[in-house]
Amino acid sequence: MELYQSFRSYLKEYINLESFIHLLVWDQSTGMPTANADYRGEQLGFISRLTHEKLVDPKMGEMLDQLIPWATTLPADSLESRLISEVAKEYEKARKIPPAFMEKFFGHTARVYQTWVKARKQNNFTLVSPLLRETLEYSKEYASYFPGYHHIADPLIDRSDEGMYVSILQPLFQDLRKKLVPMIEQIRQSEPVDRKCLLQHYPKQKQLQFIEVVLDHIGVDRSRTIQDFSPHPFMIRLAGDDVRFTTRIKEWEVTDGLFSSMHESGHALYELGISPELFGTPLMKGISSGLHESQSRLWENLVGKSREFWEYFYPKLQSVFPTQLGAVPMETFYRAMHHVSPSEIRTEADEITYNLHVIIRFDLELELLTGKLDVTDLPEAWRQRYKEDLGVDITEVKDGVLQDVHWFTDFIGGQFQGYSIGNILSCQLFDAAQQIHPSIKEEMTHGQFDTLHSWLKTNIYQHGKKFSTTEMIQRATGQALSIDPYIKYLTEKYQTIYPTLHISEE
Amino acid sequence: MELYQSFRSYLKEYINLESFIHLLVWDQSTGMPTANADYRGEQLGFISRLTHEKLVDPKMGEMLDQLIPWATTLPADSLESRLISEVAKEYEKARKIPPAFMEKFFGHTARVYQTWVKARKQNNFTLVSPLLRETLEYSKEYASYFPGYHHIADPLIDRSDEGMYVSILQPLFQDLRKKLVPMIEQIRQSEPVDRKCLLQHYPKQKQLQFIEVVLDHIGVDRSRTIQDFSPHPFMIRLAGDDVRFTTRIKEWEVTDGLFSSMHESGHALYELGISPELFGTPLMKGISSGLHESQSRLWENLVGKSREFWEYFYPKLQSVFPTQLGAVPMETFYRAMHHVSPSEIRTEADEITYNLHVIIRFDLELELLTGKLDVTDLPEAWRQRYKEDLGVDITEVKDGVLQDVHWFTDFIGGQFQGYSIGNILSCQLFDAAQQIHPSIKEEMTHGQFDTLHSWLKTNIYQHGKKFSTTEMIQRATGQALSIDPYIKYLTEKYQTIYPTLHISEE
Repeated sequence: MELYQSFRSYLKEYINLESFIHLLVWDQSTGMPTANADYRGEQLGFISRLTHEKLVDPKMGEMLDQLIPWATTLPADSLESRLISEVAKEYEKARKIPPAFMEKFFGHTARVYQTWVKARKQNNFTLVSPLLRETLEYSKEYASYFPGYHHIADPLIDRSDEGMYVSILQPLFQDLRKKLVPMIEQIRQSEPVDRKCLLQHYPKQKQLQFIEVVLDHIGVDRSRTIQDFSPHPFMIRLAGDDVRFTTRIKEWEVTDGLFSSMHESGHALYELGISPELFGTPLMKGISSGLHESQSRLWENLVGKSREFWEYFYPKLQSVFPTQLGAVPMETFYRAMHHVSPSEIRTEADEITYNLHVIIRFDLELELLTGKLDVTDLPEAWRQRYKEDLGVDITEVKDGVLQDVHWFTDFIGGQFQGYSIGNILSCQLFDAAQQIHPSIKEEMTHGQFDTLHSWLKTNIYQHGKKFSTTEMIQRATGQALSIDPYIKYLTEKYQTIYPTLHISEE
Repeated sequence: MELYQSFRSYLKEYINLESFIHLLVWDQSTGMPTANADYRGEQLGFISRLTHEKLVDPKMGEMLDQLIPWATTLPADSLESRLISEVAKEYEKARKIPPAFMEKFFGHTARVYQTWVKARKQNNFTLVSPLLRETLEYSKEYASYFPGYHHIADPLIDRSDEGMYVSILQPLFQDLRKKLVPMIEQIRQSEPVDRKCLLQHYPKQKQLQFIEVVLDHIGVDRSRTIQDFSPHPFMIRLAGDDVRFTTRIKEWEVTDGLFSSMHESGHALYELGISPELFGTPLMKGISSGLHESQSRLWENLVGKSREFWEYFYPKLQSVFPTQLGAVPMETFYRAMHHVSPSEIRTEADEITYNLHVIIRFDLELELLTGKLDVTDLPEAWRQRYKEDLGVDITEVKDGVLQDVHWFTDFIGGQFQGYSIGNILSCQLFDAAQQIHPSIKEEMTHGQFDTLHSWLKTNIYQHGKKFSTTEMIQRATGQALSIDPYIKYLTEKYQTIYPTLHISEE
């Protein structure tokens, strides 16, 4: 169909514009001179506007008017049909939001961000709370452009985790919380794990040298990626063959840099695995924040923190750091990296406590949006939940409600659920892969990850955004989202570290 | 005037688009994954088209129709008047060239470049000569869109050195050649200079550490610049407060990296000195390739290779490299860096022979464009001129006509003159600054460059592209372009290295 070809050409230009946004963001975080910060904001605003205009252009509407009926005559899973419906969805969504609203909101977030930086430094919530209250109003207004939602947070969650309604997530997260809180209590009463061996001097260049070996083994294609540095590591796709990520290296801890690189590599492997037939279309991306996080967590935790992985890599790490690790048995090293300790900071949390940080934020977002909680009372609500769930005393607001940037650069609502969906899903998907290929763990002990990588590529990566999160979970695992494999994984693994650990059956 | 405000807003968007081109180019040369090369070409083509469309948009024509008469009522040197006439000129120029022509030519150059890479590797000119012949036809066609020129090369030179007609440059370059050829002959008969002290092992990190000290002294604003690495160093402006350049470091030669950094810093200082009132307009750039090169050469040669500079910095360099230079007297080091030796390669040429490389290329461009020389005979003509002017035997075409990328990525014509205009001008401008501030050289011996830098900023940098090259030379020096200061500089300086050197009076 000729029109379909014009549609693809049009989308290519749309994706070109979007690629400039990604390049500007990448550059801003890795290379840009500091004095250019304000102008970079302008550049981003300008190109975002052009991109938005390209999407909601009447020409797009005319094409869709003809293409949508045609798509119904095609197989439901065909690329053409999926692409047309995805674009139609994005088009409709973009048209529902007044451009003036988004522009005003961008201006607002720039102010909030700057104030947050100050407030955090000064450990002073009231400095930013009036602006945060405005953010809450913006967030509600955003939701109001999508009437008919079941929960006011749904349209906000939909921005990054489409189809993951509050009605699905809330019970799931409550279940998870009920399992995790007692686990933490039990661990707290066990003998603490000794982390000393990790906390020696590990020169940066040598760490990087080891990390490169690991990335090569897990299949990160160097001709299509680059790795750079930034204080908050991230991954970004600039084009089908241009996927970038950053890491950070601590000179006095040996696993943080590696796991941060493996985490971002997981995101990168997802994007690198997308089929070239989706390049230049809005399907050239991972499905959702939850599915993306499932891949970063899978490679970081299920691979990178597994005994099998270290059976192969620990001798290699020892030979890179003979003075630091030559006399440290693998078991000591392995236990050290599984040290569990409830703390204030989400990004430094271990596997067990991490999800509680997320669930607290998710619950507070819902309470704020539904009016059950006032912005003024947020620090106190935060403090209470940390005490209750993690047994942690929050004494400084900078380590409390001001710790994460999310609410201060974007809407309130939909900011955190992806992290926990990702953790839960990572186990479901890893289990599914192992059921088909029981050799995966054995292969890992030989430094081989091809079978796992291929399964993920075939079943998930190659499809880009062709399917929804729900469809994808069903296709890849034959089941719906479930916390059972995740709880099983945590329990079995951490029982080898903390022998008194058990699941509390209700 | 309200329309003028709309005009400025429109230009801001035009400059935004142009800034994306520069970011794409920068990224391509410093960070991009190799596999993205083809798509980057597409991205550049796409954004170049948008930028061109923005310039020749009927809306621009309508604005100019009203603004041009208004501009005539304003002082001739006012920003408003200069900006309107610059934009009008760019608009007219852009409208004269059919977009289809430029698009075809971009496609052509992509092919030529790839073939040139192969031809150079295989040392085989005939592989690329048919494509080069096409390039010559494209170059003539380009000129034909500007009927009324005096010399067919003029419209091509105009692209980077506006107003520098063949009628001005040819006699100037002939004069220069007549002075330089005998100088080289005299140096050839002198005792050669010993370069051994430069050619030791100088670790990269230590070289960089020294370079940073130098850049800080000459006034490169770190908050508005970054330095990266690339095999062919270059400078590029991404925005008013975002100026970037690269360098390369040779571990077995200590001056190449420094002088490459000072050269690119000279370009950067020019761009960094542009007045913020020109930001977001097409006047936010250096005037011409010749004026830009005058600044890179001034900082590289007149500052960086001066005795005064090293009086301050040599002890510092010695303390960075005590084992390599601790026992080397400054005079030995200074003489070593002024080693003159005719060779095949332009980019490695010394101060004396450099311009002959340029003049040979300039003359050959004219002969090709006027039909006096056929593309087939180019290698032989090249060989003859190198023998005649430099006494150098070109045996390999890869070190001859295939050495520079210019003709293989762009038009033939207008590619090289800027380098020699720059050399000539650097001395005129340095002399002019010294006449007003006789203390400049003395200050340099104390590592102080502020007086020089301020004079250049006030007289040249701040004005961006507000004036033409000819106007600027006149304003800053009170004279027209002249080779006399340059010849005087070379003779006086190199007489201290090669005592038999003298100017041959005709």
